Amino acid sequence: MGFWKSLFSSTDASIEKPTSTESYVVPGSGEGASDRATPRIFFSTEREIDLYELEELCDAVGWSRRPLRKVKKAIQHSFLVASMWEQRGVQRRLVGFARATSDHAFNATIWDVVVHPDFQGKGLGKALMKFMIKKLRSEDISNITLFADPHVVNFYRNLGFMQDPEGIKGMFWYPD
Amino acid sequence: MGFWKSLFSSTDASIEKPTSTESYVVPGSGEGASDRATPRIFFSTEREIDLYELEELCDAVGWSRRPLRKVKKAIQHSFLVASMWEQRGVQRRLVGFARATSDHAFNATIWDVVVHPDFQGKGLGKALMKFMIKKLRSEDISNITLFADPHVVNFYRNLGFMQDPEGIKGMFWYPD
Repeated sequence: MGFWKSLFSSTDASIEKPTSTESYVVPGSGEGASDRATPRIFFSTEREIDLYELEELCDAVGWSRRPLRKVKKAIQHSFLVASMWEQRGVQRRLVGFARATSDHAFNATIWDVVVHPDFQGKGLGKALMKFMIKKLRSEDISNITLFADPHVVNFYRNLGFMQDPEGIKGMFWYPD
Repeated sequence: MGFWKSLFSSTDASIEKPTSTESYVVPGSGEGASDRATPRIFFSTEREIDLYELEELCDAVGWSRRPLRKVKKAIQHSFLVASMWEQRGVQRRLVGFARATSDHAFNATIWDVVVHPDFQGKGLGKALMKFMIKKLRSEDISNITLFADPHVVNFYRNLGFMQDPEGIKGMFWYPD
């Protein structure tokens, strides 16, 4: 036990996860200035996400509600958490979200990709996914996977994701 | 940052992962006693796995070699690591392995399922997977996923895994 124990005790989960305050402006965003301020879209890997604001975002796309306690735990134990924000002056609004689980070495699996309906059709989902891929690649993850609902298979295909490569099948086990 | 930081600093990765010394004997194993001792098969979630022994196991099924540094990291950051051993007297031999990544809340993804060729066709792969499912279920994970090579799709289907449920597609992104 000594070997693994010493590995674990020197490893804080938060250190090895690629969290950062880094953000950037999507090229082409910031158009359509309002009378208050020019809105800008930016991305972040910070995990400081108001769970109620996230729930509101997921409600907006019609997802079933999940216990916030479990959502908090899932965010805490995801390898990468990406959020997309609209900023107007000092106000910011959560408009997109995605996260990935990973073994920190070979594989990552992307879950819970959501873009607010008001912000769909503007290339922002694509930008969010490119942000995810860039971050995962920067961590040397080479196998990025996901499970796509039928209506978004083409969206992911356009981003370079392959469906069932070499006949590999996504499979699910649910409790009875 | 304060909120998440305090969550993380109170969370040691090793504590929340379902590692244990628990093991059990597969019903029906232990048959065919040798002249040395009755061989027994047991399972463990301990992470104390000799990486060279694991590499030998993966070699035996023809997998490409991977850097041990990365294998070590992947094991360390997997949510669940299951190993299957043959015990003869005080000697034990690694004969199977599987691991799962997870967000510790909703989803788990099983990777690297391997059973030594000498031990295939005896129901041990099935027993290993049942052990994985039982452990993940005991952690309240309800969505267990995997990506199955074509020749093992039926193996997983027999265990209750569904292929592309509701048209959900497994998708992969690899670097160019």
